[in-house]
Amino acid sequence: MRIVDIIDKKKQGKALSKEEINYFISSLANNVMPDYQASAWLMAVWFRGMDEEETANLTEAIINSGEIIHFGALSKKLIDKHSTGGVGDKVTITLIPLLAAAGIPVAKLSGKGLGHTGGTIDKLESIPGFSTSLSIEDMHNQVEKIGVAIGQQTQNLTPADGMLYALRDVTATIDSVPLIASSVVSKKIASGADNIILDVKYGSGAFMKTPQDAEKLASLMVNIGKRLNKSITAVVTSMEEPLGRAVGNALEIIESIEFLKGNIVTGDIAELTYDFGVIALAQTGKIIDETTARNYLQEIIHSGKAIEKFKELIEAQGGNAEVIEDYSKLPEAKYKVEVKSETEGYVKKIDAYKIAYGCKLLGAGREKKTDSIDYSVGVYLNKKTGEKVNIGDTLYTIYSNDEMKTEDCKKYCNEAYEFVSEEPAVQKQIYTIIK
Amino acid sequence: MRIVDIIDKKKQGKALSKEEINYFISSLANNVMPDYQASAWLMAVWFRGMDEEETANLTEAIINSGEIIHFGALSKKLIDKHSTGGVGDKVTITLIPLLAAAGIPVAKLSGKGLGHTGGTIDKLESIPGFSTSLSIEDMHNQVEKIGVAIGQQTQNLTPADGMLYALRDVTATIDSVPLIASSVVSKKIASGADNIILDVKYGSGAFMKTPQDAEKLASLMVNIGKRLNKSITAVVTSMEEPLGRAVGNALEIIESIEFLKGNIVTGDIAELTYDFGVIALAQTGKIIDETTARNYLQEIIHSGKAIEKFKELIEAQGGNAEVIEDYSKLPEAKYKVEVKSETEGYVKKIDAYKIAYGCKLLGAGREKKTDSIDYSVGVYLNKKTGEKVNIGDTLYTIYSNDEMKTEDCKKYCNEAYEFVSEEPAVQKQIYTIIK
Repeated sequence: MRIVDIIDKKKQGKALSKEEINYFISSLANNVMPDYQASAWLMAVWFRGMDEEETANLTEAIINSGEIIHFGALSKKLIDKHSTGGVGDKVTITLIPLLAAAGIPVAKLSGKGLGHTGGTIDKLESIPGFSTSLSIEDMHNQVEKIGVAIGQQTQNLTPADGMLYALRDVTATIDSVPLIASSVVSKKIASGADNIILDVKYGSGAFMKTPQDAEKLASLMVNIGKRLNKSITAVVTSMEEPLGRAVGNALEIIESIEFLKGNIVTGDIAELTYDFGVIALAQTGKIIDETTARNYLQEIIHSGKAIEKFKELIEAQGGNAEVIEDYSKLPEAKYKVEVKSETEGYVKKIDAYKIAYGCKLLGAGREKKTDSIDYSVGVYLNKKTGEKVNIGDTLYTIYSNDEMKTEDCKKYCNEAYEFVSEEPAVQKQIYTIIK
Repeated sequence: MRIVDIIDKKKQGKALSKEEINYFISSLANNVMPDYQASAWLMAVWFRGMDEEETANLTEAIINSGEIIHFGALSKKLIDKHSTGGVGDKVTITLIPLLAAAGIPVAKLSGKGLGHTGGTIDKLESIPGFSTSLSIEDMHNQVEKIGVAIGQQTQNLTPADGMLYALRDVTATIDSVPLIASSVVSKKIASGADNIILDVKYGSGAFMKTPQDAEKLASLMVNIGKRLNKSITAVVTSMEEPLGRAVGNALEIIESIEFLKGNIVTGDIAELTYDFGVIALAQTGKIIDETTARNYLQEIIHSGKAIEKFKELIEAQGGNAEVIEDYSKLPEAKYKVEVKSETEGYVKKIDAYKIAYGCKLLGAGREKKTDSIDYSVGVYLNKKTGEKVNIGDTLYTIYSNDEMKTEDCKKYCNEAYEFVSEEPAVQKQIYTIIK
């Protein structure tokens, strides 16, 4: 078997066999194939795509390129939740204590993401002392004890995915449905949970720009799961505007705590967290009926069990749980600038990408793995889509440590807002659920 | 400017600007772009193609990546001839002494080709003592003196082409019309002649399988020439069967000498050599009328001036010119095996690729630059397409130094021949001429 023939076959639009895909990925992972062949192949895949069988075989080959985590008997019950990434997306943080409090064990492994704003790990690590450097054994023990653990992906998980992603990043081949699907699903399956919920985003702040494209990706991932004997539910959700009101690491922790305390009962964060919770209860066979499940979850929030579980999680991972009662224990920005509206009307939309870019300018994210993040900065959206705005109302608030950066951020945030004179129809957060 | 954006733009099917192409090629040539970005770009070009302007800009950028040869005032009159490569193609060897004898100066630079059979340089170097290691100054002086010189391409000519070709070879991106066109034309223009004749082959023994594809490539190359102020004539010719009867280095020298002596007056070699000669006379403005030109060239052959010029060329480049009168001075194979026909009928076609592969097995070509070539081996086609064959007639003759290899070669040669019972129509060698 020759790599050049595998590239040529894909270039001609033919489906690759399992043997060819295995040979290609193991050549990559074992460093016996030069990068220039891998990147030519990636571009051929970008143009020709891959069918479901090829993508499942690719996913399996990527899984087998590294360690696979086993939680033993726990695996069957475990749930893992992953989002393809969105601005202000703290639903992992609101969901996992809720699920754990509802008796569904959660072991989540996350990567330290690159992007305009931090990832789940970064958000949690903005809590002083909170550490995600857990061994698999640590995670296992913690899940047995308190029902929930969140760790950082080790380097030995799906190394081929890391290698492919690094090449895709510099060869303009990120936006390929089979490559995204195999990357996401391989990481999740290698992380050890048998039940997986995937939040597939579409919109200006996401890879997939339309709900139709996101649905295609979602279906493919669910079907890969079936072929590899894992239960995957994929939820296609809107990322047309930021999720919730807070964008920025510590700010998002505060918003998450507010939800878990029961202080946020409407809006996108509440809607999505409950929807995912209902899906998780059904997927693990705990509660099938939707209304019963929803009431059950609401009761967990209102009884204080959810925020209590979050407190346990913070303490178990070395964090200062006082942040729950005292937000000043979180990193605080020097400047808090309330930006007033010069327009009267209703918010028609808020461009997620532009808000994220504004936050990046403040220092909320990282471009390189070695960049440090300023946990304290970010933007709070006082007005969201559909809300009435009068001249002089606070539209959004910038949390910043630098006056120049504040001005730069403001420019992007102002551009992000669009107004209409009539109240716009409220759009549902979930486009479709595929299982 | 970022390389990833240039890759992405081409991936999206947009035309690249001159600045983008220059940046890309200079990044490649200066080793500041990793190979994996170059190969992803090559695959994107394979899928999206390039328009004429882009291809001309690419060609110019490749020319500018290295040295450009200047023959001074001589350049304007000089003619160069290049073939995209074919089995048994010795038309460069038959043509250049003829042109020089006709008063058209020829300075030809050739690469040591990889392939199943040797290139022009290899064929000439099968003449004992013949050397193509000439400096540009040597070539210039020799052309001034005897009107003709043939040298090896130095490494400093179009280095970017060498780098691109090496990547294309291992990433299945050889067969791209704009990449072939820019590669061929850049080398020719950098070699210093203002008048260029390109023989663009189609058929089983060539890159382009159909005359239509070859015509597309030919038109593109002629138009690139116009944009870069060079006179290029492209001739689309058939490579459905080997050219002439001899395939193999020393055997092809004998056939060339026979033509230059006036002993071969019909068939593809004579047809093509005269046709190219007529084109060259017109292109350099020496004789425009076709019949006059043809008669003039025939007279040069029949008067002995052409073979005399070849003798001068051999002597000027250190070769033993006695080979002209005594073929035993050329490397001779140990075995000469005449293979008899078991079929009666007419030869319908002879697969050029299979004959070439048979010769490769004998040792006539090289796969790696460091491989050595056996000049003496090859195949002589006693019967060619359209010729009558009786059972027991010699179909072809194998010249070999190894009995096992003879048998292997025979297998491929036998497969190459196809027969019909009725005399087939004779196909013209030239499909079209583009200028």
